[in-house]
Amino acid sequence: MKLYDCPGPPSPRRVRIFLAEKGLDIEKVIVNIREGEQFNDEFREINPNCTVPVLELDDGSRISSIDAINRYLEEKFPEPPLFGSSPEERAHINDCCHYINVNGFMAVAEALRNSAPRLAHRAITGPRNVEQIAELAERGRQRVVYFFEDMNKQLENQEFMAGNSYSVADIGALVVVDFATKMAKIEMPEGLDNLNRWHAAISARPSADA
Amino acid sequence: MKLYDCPGPPSPRRVRIFLAEKGLDIEKVIVNIREGEQFNDEFREINPNCTVPVLELDDGSRISSIDAINRYLEEKFPEPPLFGSSPEERAHINDCCHYINVNGFMAVAEALRNSAPRLAHRAITGPRNVEQIAELAERGRQRVVYFFEDMNKQLENQEFMAGNSYSVADIGALVVVDFATKMAKIEMPEGLDNLNRWHAAISARPSADA
Repeated sequence: MKLYDCPGPPSPRRVRIFLAEKGLDIEKVIVNIREGEQFNDEFREINPNCTVPVLELDDGSRISSIDAINRYLEEKFPEPPLFGSSPEERAHINDCCHYINVNGFMAVAEALRNSAPRLAHRAITGPRNVEQIAELAERGRQRVVYFFEDMNKQLENQEFMAGNSYSVADIGALVVVDFATKMAKIEMPEGLDNLNRWHAAISARPSADA
Repeated sequence: MKLYDCPGPPSPRRVRIFLAEKGLDIEKVIVNIREGEQFNDEFREINPNCTVPVLELDDGSRISSIDAINRYLEEKFPEPPLFGSSPEERAHINDCCHYINVNGFMAVAEALRNSAPRLAHRAITGPRNVEQIAELAERGRQRVVYFFEDMNKQLENQEFMAGNSYSVADIGALVVVDFATKMAKIEMPEGLDNLNRWHAAISARPSADA
């Protein structure tokens, strides 16, 4: 197993934190995305979508979506379980992850990728250029604020994003919050005490530095 | 177990086809979305996201994302497996489903929801109104055409979307193609023979009528 990785962006961090929580250290190949190495012919052979991370499986084939990568790792290394311990727990973690991806991760990506000058023509990741839409950046920023408010409400009576155990949903949400506040510079509204309490706790885990 | 369902839109169809392929017939409650029943106080208690479908689990709790619903059904009723039969097969099916969702399903939704007059202020599903962005509708239509081309290429040397067995990826992709061509009126480019061959085969399965 081998991970094509790069420091900085949110997606590979979701895999690195997952690996850290599992106590795993797998072979890594750093892709220099600042130099645009993901668009080179050589990397297109590895991943035609030109995105990082990529996990090379034991059989030599490769996958590139975070969801597929983390689920494969969960299956190969079940302890500690990060996708839940019962069908119902898994159902709620999967559900929670969906909303974190759609309302959180994609909203921040919309906000950032449709506005940052360095991402001109790169409004969506992938092999094709896509032009930015200024209105969509604005809509994305608003959606991120809604997402913060919704997360704060969800954390009112529970310690973790998807209930009372740490899970892959906490990894996803941590990365969204940091992606939003540090990279897209979207301020968290004041008074979201539950969200702040949760963020401090999750950030204090050693895995958060991965 | 109980499914809140409605005829017409693509998302509940993804669950109904999944159930049909499993040979399952579970209790269904029809939500009248043409009358806006999903925004009623009563339904908000069932699903604060105001979306259909919703699966009520055996413990009375509820989930509303298609991914979580179909995974729960897979776990409860493993035969025939629709998410793959080995860790590697599951990895590729999960990966394929991710791209079908992001590049297919969401692109069609962007195209339709940002342009249809009946969906004014409803550019995104959920409890909050979101204004349409005309440019995003146009970009969505273009992305759907790319998606058709990519699927056609993927099907060059394989019978099904994620390899050589029917899987949940075929369900997702079938619903995307029908959503695009029948509801969003996006024409499939001519000459995509692999995609047409695959679409005819998948549509001929009894489950496609679900």
